[in-house]
Amino acid sequence: MEWTQEARVLSHHGLMAMLGAAVAKAEALNQPQCIVIVDASGEVLAELRMTGAKFLSRKSALAKARTAASIGAPSDAIPEAVRASIAAATGGAVTGLPGGLPIIQGGHRLGGIGVGSGSGDQDVAVGRAALAAIGITD
Amino acid sequence: MEWTQEARVLSHHGLMAMLGAAVAKAEALNQPQCIVIVDASGEVLAELRMTGAKFLSRKSALAKARTAASIGAPSDAIPEAVRASIAAATGGAVTGLPGGLPIIQGGHRLGGIGVGSGSGDQDVAVGRAALAAIGITD
Amino acid sequence: MEWTQEARVLSHHGLMAMLGAAVAKAEALNQPQCIVIVDASGEVLAELRMTGAKFLSRKSALAKARTAASIGAPSDAIPEAVRASIAAATGGAVTGLPGGLPIIQGGHRLGGIGVGSGSGDQDVAVGRAALAAIGITD
Amino acid sequence: MEWTQEARVLSHHGLMAMLGAAVAKAEALNQPQCIVIVDASGEVLAELRMTGAKFLSRKSALAKARTAASIGAPSDAIPEAVRASIAAATGGAVTGLPGGLPIIQGGHRLGGIGVGSGSGDQDVAVGRAALAAIGITD
Repeated sequence: MEWTQEARVLSHHGLMAMLGAAVAKAEALNQPQCIVIVDASGEVLAELRMTGAKFLSRKSALAKARTAASIGAPSDAIPEAVRASIAAATGGAVTGLPGGLPIIQGGHRLGGIGVGSGSGDQDVAVGRAALAAIGITD
Repeated sequence: MEWTQEARVLSHHGLMAMLGAAVAKAEALNQPQCIVIVDASGEVLAELRMTGAKFLSRKSALAKARTAASIGAPSDAIPEAVRASIAAATGGAVTGLPGGLPIIQGGHRLGGIGVGSGSGDQDVAVGRAALAAIGITD
Repeated sequence: MEWTQEARVLSHHGLMAMLGAAVAKAEALNQPQCIVIVDASGEVLAELRMTGAKFLSRKSALAKARTAASIGAPSDAIPEAVRASIAAATGGAVTGLPGGLPIIQGGHRLGGIGVGSGSGDQDVAVGRAALAAIGITD
Repeated sequence: MEWTQEARVLSHHGLMAMLGAAVAKAEALNQPQCIVIVDASGEVLAELRMTGAKFLSRKSALAKARTAASIGAPSDAIPEAVRASIAAATGGAVTGLPGGLPIIQGGHRLGGIGVGSGSGDQDVAVGRAALAAIGITD
């Protein structure tokens, strides 16, 4: 019986690389964004609100990041049929909105990134750019 | 007129037996779970987040446990038609999600158990295994 | 530059061993306890309220566990002079109460355990018994 | 009578420069930090939790940043004699802990930065390094 097991965590160098790549992508799309990165327990590691981004999108970006980190899949993988019930039961913590992506490397769940202020497609594109910066590609 | 009446409460030995049986069942199902047990007032008695379980399922498992303890029936006994209204009116405390079971023995309502991270059927199966460990079978 | 780094996490087998040892110690001391175990980000992994423990000690046990996990030292290592200020600035999350111990193994910070309902000495003794169960001794 | 007046706000390029300089200084001091930057309304603009920083210091760093942005002075300018009263009256939002600095340029109050996890001196040094990165020196 093992009392502990191996894991991996994001370093702040990884976080800065992710934020930088997210900003570059958002600028290329001409859509300022709120970007939130959480660890594998949903605690915030990094956050950036770009000039012109919707300030309340901080909240949805956080929910997206935490959802993706919790389920180990994109936030919009939450089935449509149960979104309202799960959102209610978790005080809004679980969301089915697109823009949350898990951060998984070598089988280890490192956390999640959530992006909000643009369209769903723009949010996802910015999240993917951030993941690519640390070598995670689909 | 009786000013007071007899009740029964779960002991921590009962709680540990429930957690142990829940873990064994979840491992048999190969689905890590969040397990929450509350007393007849909905206050947490015990909780376990298994390795690999979704951390936000702690929240929904708590809502399931509290709902079952409150109504004295499985959480999904809440009628579909009123789930959204009741969730709103209780700040999300009452949920119709499956996975919450009441803990009732000899006519005494001892509390509720909520399980989350798996499918509804898996969640209920783990809850039932925990109840069976203290002699409660359907 | 490293984007990620190695870590370790507690398994639920470790958590159950810790809860079991904590209960045994608390029974030996004849002092029921609330026991909370959190991960390295302060998110709850396991919790038990023993029969007869003060139910509001759940809250202080959580604060003790989170404080120890955050600072990587016993909760009462917070200097007396700044306890009130730090408690206020963190919404009560950081406490200087005794009974919180970090869970550190091989240089990895795995989380923290908080115990509450007894005297400070009793709380610490129960926490140490839990740590000893997974091979962590002072 | 003027119905509106000129203001200035931090751009996300300024935020990234501040975070980068804060990280460099914290690494030079060998003390990982939580860094939070807020705008002139106290709303979060950017945040970074460095590897090894105390996760609960996010909360105190936020209080420091908001206090400095609100009063337009370092957080520890709050007089000792009133700290407890003001903390109580503001739900912990105003803190006298050192490590919060206002971000003021050309007479415009742009926001505040809060740093936490180190000693008061280390926290202030990291905050100053971040300000220097955008041309603000004492």
